[in-house]
Amino acid sequence: MILKVKTNKKKEIIDITEKINEFLEKQNKESGLIFLFALHTTCALTTADLDPGADKDYLIAFEKITPQAKYIHPHNPEHFPDHFLSSVVGTSLFIPFENKNLILGTWQRVILIEFDGPREREIIIKVI
Amino acid sequence: MILKVKTNKKKEIIDITEKINEFLEKQNKESGLIFLFALHTTCALTTADLDPGADKDYLIAFEKITPQAKYIHPHNPEHFPDHFLSSVVGTSLFIPFENKNLILGTWQRVILIEFDGPREREIIIKVI
Amino acid sequence: MILKVKTNKKKEIIDITEKINEFLEKQNKESGLIFLFALHTTCALTTADLDPGADKDYLIAFEKITPQAKYIHPHNPEHFPDHFLSSVVGTSLFIPFENKNLILGTWQRVILIEFDGPREREIIIKVI
Repeated sequence: MILKVKTNKKKEIIDITEKINEFLEKQNKESGLIFLFALHTTCALTTADLDPGADKDYLIAFEKITPQAKYIHPHNPEHFPDHFLSSVVGTSLFIPFENKNLILGTWQRVILIEFDGPREREIIIKVI
Repeated sequence: MILKVKTNKKKEIIDITEKINEFLEKQNKESGLIFLFALHTTCALTTADLDPGADKDYLIAFEKITPQAKYIHPHNPEHFPDHFLSSVVGTSLFIPFENKNLILGTWQRVILIEFDGPREREIIIKVI
Repeated sequence: MILKVKTNKKKEIIDITEKINEFLEKQNKESGLIFLFALHTTCALTTADLDPGADKDYLIAFEKITPQAKYIHPHNPEHFPDHFLSSVVGTSLFIPFENKNLILGTWQRVILIEFDGPREREIIIKVI
């Protein structure tokens, strides 16, 4: 199945934890692993702490580690770091679930990091 | 099942390879994949080279790439990079095993990276 | 099974998408997930955009974020960042497939990043 996630800004941290839990509620399996795979090269999937303000902090930190250079990439070379950060963080994820709910740490959330929005992102979602 | 890993310092590289092999010895399955998922937002799981001294080199390198900025995060803004590095490296991992032993490269080890210890870390461990 | 990938330079981005599709064609399973695990500590696996020139841009960006420091690592301390980048990006990957073909985004490719070649790299490949 495909999970669609609409992003609203050029750079954005989106909490997709509840969206995945809603998907799990409709499945037959009570427990197992959920696999997510974003079909894109300028966003990423990972886990994160999302205390108030932390989403902005993530964007500040990504901006800080963005490697500035003269890129070769033909269309929009200034856009290349969006691809780079997506490849470094990764575009897929597994999370365990039980009773049709993700098992996460107290502060842990599942996030999509948008590096080049706004767009509608497509994530393959599979129960294992 | 939960694998518990005690860390002893603020920043630390912990080799958990043997701990996982001990877990595998007690399982019924001879070969497959092992899944690890840390229930935390200030540590990470990955593979690494652990030649003598390399653990310290990892900490030096993480220190070097830590993005310094004015973070918004309400409690302990100076602690935000611990979350950031955890999200970039990732908190989960799959490793193949055979004959109840992890299959790894000659120099390859499985590590937990502690960014905000000392703590007792909990890692979900599942055989697939 | 082991997938062998020959690299030709010290630093190199290698598109392994077609190699994986060739492997999938010979399998019995039509759809599922493919698991890749590189048995090494100085290369990495991830997904990427490979527009013409983008492979060079990835190498420029990795060079830029390479943390320069006095490393302790006994043989070849200047070689330590190769291990570091491998651990940060990660040495394993899952990709979904259907009709014996990887499911990827329009611009998405599967790459091996060589940080310390030229070598022959070995990647465990398993269909799930």
